[in-house]
Amino acid sequence: MSMRTRDNIILIGFSYSGKSMVGRKVAKRLGWSFVDTDEEITKLAGKDIPQIFALDGEEHFRELERGVLNKACRGQNAVIATGGGAVLDEANRELMRESGVIICLEVGAETIYQRLLKNGEGSSGPLRPLLAAQDPLRRIRELKAFRQPYYDLADWKVGTDDLTVEEVSNEVIRHWNFRDASCVVRVAGGSYPLFINRGLLEELGERMKGMGLLGKVSIISDQAVFSLYGARARESLERADFGVNFLALPPGETSKTIENAIKIYDFLIERRVERNDIIVALGGGVVGDLAGFVAATFLRGLPLVQVPTSLIAMVDASIGGKTAVNRPGAKNLIGVFYQPKVVLADVETLLTLPHRELISGWSEVIKHAMILSPELLRFLEERAEELLELNLEVAAEAIRLSASLKAEVVSEDEKERGRRIILNYGHTLAHGLEAATGYAHFLHGEAVAVGMMGAAIISHELGLLSSEVVERQRTLLERFGLPTRCSGVNIDSVLGAMELDKKVRSGKIRWVLLGEVGQPVIRDDVPRDVVLGVIRDLLKGNA
Amino acid sequence: MSMRTRDNIILIGFSYSGKSMVGRKVAKRLGWSFVDTDEEITKLAGKDIPQIFALDGEEHFRELERGVLNKACRGQNAVIATGGGAVLDEANRELMRESGVIICLEVGAETIYQRLLKNGEGSSGPLRPLLAAQDPLRRIRELKAFRQPYYDLADWKVGTDDLTVEEVSNEVIRHWNFRDASCVVRVAGGSYPLFINRGLLEELGERMKGMGLLGKVSIISDQAVFSLYGARARESLERADFGVNFLALPPGETSKTIENAIKIYDFLIERRVERNDIIVALGGGVVGDLAGFVAATFLRGLPLVQVPTSLIAMVDASIGGKTAVNRPGAKNLIGVFYQPKVVLADVETLLTLPHRELISGWSEVIKHAMILSPELLRFLEERAEELLELNLEVAAEAIRLSASLKAEVVSEDEKERGRRIILNYGHTLAHGLEAATGYAHFLHGEAVAVGMMGAAIISHELGLLSSEVVERQRTLLERFGLPTRCSGVNIDSVLGAMELDKKVRSGKIRWVLLGEVGQPVIRDDVPRDVVLGVIRDLLKGNA
Repeated sequence: MSMRTRDNIILIGFSYSGKSMVGRKVAKRLGWSFVDTDEEITKLAGKDIPQIFALDGEEHFRELERGVLNKACRGQNAVIATGGGAVLDEANRELMRESGVIICLEVGAETIYQRLLKNGEGSSGPLRPLLAAQDPLRRIRELKAFRQPYYDLADWKVGTDDLTVEEVSNEVIRHWNFRDASCVVRVAGGSYPLFINRGLLEELGERMKGMGLLGKVSIISDQAVFSLYGARARESLERADFGVNFLALPPGETSKTIENAIKIYDFLIERRVERNDIIVALGGGVVGDLAGFVAATFLRGLPLVQVPTSLIAMVDASIGGKTAVNRPGAKNLIGVFYQPKVVLADVETLLTLPHRELISGWSEVIKHAMILSPELLRFLEERAEELLELNLEVAAEAIRLSASLKAEVVSEDEKERGRRIILNYGHTLAHGLEAATGYAHFLHGEAVAVGMMGAAIISHELGLLSSEVVERQRTLLERFGLPTRCSGVNIDSVLGAMELDKKVRSGKIRWVLLGEVGQPVIRDDVPRDVVLGVIRDLLKGNA
Repeated sequence: MSMRTRDNIILIGFSYSGKSMVGRKVAKRLGWSFVDTDEEITKLAGKDIPQIFALDGEEHFRELERGVLNKACRGQNAVIATGGGAVLDEANRELMRESGVIICLEVGAETIYQRLLKNGEGSSGPLRPLLAAQDPLRRIRELKAFRQPYYDLADWKVGTDDLTVEEVSNEVIRHWNFRDASCVVRVAGGSYPLFINRGLLEELGERMKGMGLLGKVSIISDQAVFSLYGARARESLERADFGVNFLALPPGETSKTIENAIKIYDFLIERRVERNDIIVALGGGVVGDLAGFVAATFLRGLPLVQVPTSLIAMVDASIGGKTAVNRPGAKNLIGVFYQPKVVLADVETLLTLPHRELISGWSEVIKHAMILSPELLRFLEERAEELLELNLEVAAEAIRLSASLKAEVVSEDEKERGRRIILNYGHTLAHGLEAATGYAHFLHGEAVAVGMMGAAIISHELGLLSSEVVERQRTLLERFGLPTRCSGVNIDSVLGAMELDKKVRSGKIRWVLLGEVGQPVIRDDVPRDVVLGVIRDLLKGNA
């Protein structure tokens, strides 16, 4: 995508995927021009395409196609519908890539066959001869399979089988609006972008429209955040013609209860919220988890927009679809995976974040660096002072890097069946510390900082990790003002709580350890006495 | 699958999908023999496969392969790992189909490439020459795309990219155990079977093991059902070495609350339930909806087994993953889509079902017939007397037919974005009737019966449906003792409630109507006065 030098939308895909109809509609909606290369070729040659094939041969057709495509791609603000075979040519692909965002309209062989039959004998399309084949459906499958690798080169794919032209057009425009995203999470239920920048709250309404969201908006927030940013969010939404309701709950982890979920359900019921209406979660991790849980479970799923206003929510909680509420003594045990439609982080909201919470947030950024990225680690080491002074440009860059790493892991393993577990680096011990102190003593990031020290030291004691890396982590955590040890916590309570944690698997604790910066290692065979020794040292405050 | 005459498992798939390793493991677990056709060919020819290709040519290799495969397929209780290209031959495919269940191990081009690199220069596999290609990954993609249509002919596909050999073997055995299912629901998150028969409660534990389920079981039930069938379920589970907890709630729709969900959460927390532990929902629709909701939302999803004991749950509620709880005045508004791992319906439990509930259940069966199946409609018309006498063999057959229809619709549209809406035939008015009478007057199926009459008559008044079909539906409903009209219900309350229903879309009511038996039609432009007139007549009791 980095090679793109113009703003066009190029539609590729098999015959009968609806490229022309969709392209025309998208162009109209965006106020752009529309080019159908097959149509241009017909005009140019003065005969229809089967005739060109029959009289002049395929090679001549491809030559005309290259010319037409070349002309179209050198324009600006055009939707270009290409012939089904245009992608087979390497020069064409290069041309398209430079010219804009390439979106493939996917269509199943069954659907192609049905549309071809409907079109019937009158069809002049390139697939018509297939109708005479012995097993046309199979021939379509084979032809499609052969081209699939080329279609797979598209920036985005949009499934069309069950959608109307209107719905496919929405999807095309939605994906076009991914182009200036900080990163994109790609999951089975549909990809979604993360926007991370200054001043984005002003753009909330417009960005949501760009994502194809319609319907009434219910903002769920906490009272502290809402008093600061509620008006800005509302005004932006109303400017974009959204109807807006809102509900602000008391701030803090104690609000993340089923009882508050019920309060929100009843609020939504009272306001007759329907399936296409939208939940906007405006706040930190608590609001995101709670509002996300409600969005996931109301009417079997409402569209959700995450607008994180804390650092920890921007780099972690708002990305990846984990939602949750607590029961007494059982944090986050109730929840579902439910992905938002878009995440929009306005880094200016960090200016009003309490200092201790800001510091706590950098802990998760350091975690991402340790398990995934030597580059991010160097960036944090080099720019620590600017980050601590909250230079918003530098902070936005660090947040984008960190969020991109998380987005990548989630894209690989949405439901934490495999690789996503590495994000729990430092969290096994952190959860133990938080539970043992009744979630009153540590902020989450602080507990994670101590937990990361525990995991790093265990890694070292098992011979996996050099002491240099352990010390590098410690130094950075301390520069950010994060704790690397603690005292006054009961070790038995910590151990008891760790064994109740969600990451436990049939009684064994699965540790995320480190072999090197960026090289996490999963182990469920860490000897209990090693764990005990390390935790004992950390909790004595002399690790 | 109907052509299968032997019990073997045939593994197909691209090179490096792990067919040999998995096959060996599966054979061991089942106590079967294992055949690796490539190995047999090597033995037979006295040289390795690249040598056969080089010295004797591919044609000779294919001939040897046919012979080896032929011999293997004529055995019994064998796991047969085939070469990556064996499926290309039509005679081979025919042979496999007769011989057993064909399971394709799916593997991504990236993974193939990684495994090939790992194997490196030492590789003697058929892909080795690809390493010398200019863009090996692309070549693999193309080769794979060409073969994909043949792999798609497998009975089942198992993704292997992120799984261990152990996990893939589990999946193979799980799919093998689909072979005597009454039908299978195919959804994105993984297919699951429905077993519908007499005496299945005795087999609950064994069947669950066959589905690869391990871990502790929590049976969630209602007190009425549990007193009748709890012991039988427990004993079956314990015979299969499952640890069992149970919780039985008061019966009836009033139990389907968030408060009861909380009761179950706390029960699970107290018993330290972990991610692989299983929820068994033993009961009717209320238990299935409530326990399903809890399974979906505890630890972000526990494996769920539906054991429906009412007719309506067997043919409808237990299939398709709709889970829900109620809020006062807001039925089913809170819930998620969450698919079970297996549905097991023991039709003998119908013997203790109250007569009125049994009758109510046939209403949904008749609905499936009207919208989807002239065959089922004829079956119901011909066998009505036996069904009303609860002849269990005939009932099981009707339930299987009905459940299969629902399974098919759900497989096409898991999340009710498209076709699944047709299952709401009769439900728009039914929900209005139920809400207007505080869910106290009608059983669900009774309201649906009246609702189907409403939808049929509206269809007729719009000129879509013949009066013969309307009368045919009425006659059948009446033979089953179901209401086709009613009196004493306030029409304004009904209309108000209909407009609050989930199926409403931006203020418009989407009606599921009928063009003919088996031909549903969706309309959101039914004139209000037509609706009013029809409902008025129905509610006067003189439709």
